[in-house]
Amino acid sequence: MTATSSTTLENVDDVEVCVERLKLDDRDLIPVIAQDATTRAVLMLAWMNADAFRRTLATRRATYWSRSRQAYWVKGETSGHTQHVREMRLDCDGDTILLLVDQQGPACHTGARTCFDADVVFVDGEGSVDDRGPADA
Amino acid sequence: MTATSSTTLENVDDVEVCVERLKLDDRDLIPVIAQDATTRAVLMLAWMNADAFRRTLATRRATYWSRSRQAYWVKGETSGHTQHVREMRLDCDGDTILLLVDQQGPACHTGARTCFDADVVFVDGEGSVDDRGPADA
Repeated sequence: MTATSSTTLENVDDVEVCVERLKLDDRDLIPVIAQDATTRAVLMLAWMNADAFRRTLATRRATYWSRSRQAYWVKGETSGHTQHVREMRLDCDGDTILLLVDQQGPACHTGARTCFDADVVFVDGEGSVDDRGPADA
Repeated sequence: MTATSSTTLENVDDVEVCVERLKLDDRDLIPVIAQDATTRAVLMLAWMNADAFRRTLATRRATYWSRSRQAYWVKGETSGHTQHVREMRLDCDGDTILLLVDQQGPACHTGARTCFDADVVFVDGEGSVDDRGPADA
């Protein structure tokens, strides 16, 4: 993969080279972090197999593999809460994907903005980082 | 778990209630997203088992389970690039953890700021979201 920061989807000319770079787990899946491209909030973690990765590259709509339903899952196909992928990155050992997305509506099936909104284990004495607004705000 | 946004580490008084909420996978692990509490950059994805979770709660130093080394891994213990955990959240189905951390130095073992810096699959025509600086900047 020779993509650089100036790469656009249109010139990812060898998708299969990218696919071969993915280190899939023993279920042939890779975890995918979806982050809001504007607010930088971490929205959710989901999973892709190789074909969900290809579909996401081809459509720019985040497309995951549902482990519970054992089916492809175009995020927002039912709810309208789609994720348009503006940026896709792999981590240093190729076993995690990061998507920067334009999230339409809430990301969580509960209606929450993110899947991490409801269940706080602890927050330091200054209060939630999120409550303090975006970085540098 | 009845923690709220005003919860501090000191009053997470029933760690085992939190542990029981974790949905561990078939290897008894849970994926953990580490996000920079200041810049909001997603730094890395790592894994915890129940005891790494307990250790992180007790020390506030991000402590993972290394799948390759099959050992606990206090982030930065060797490199000095520690993660002080300011906030810990679970996702809506309890199978992913999000940490908001104060990252000392680079997060990636390669020396990069994050594990997602080097390997860009694609970026839309406007250039990297990250290159445009923090949200609202």
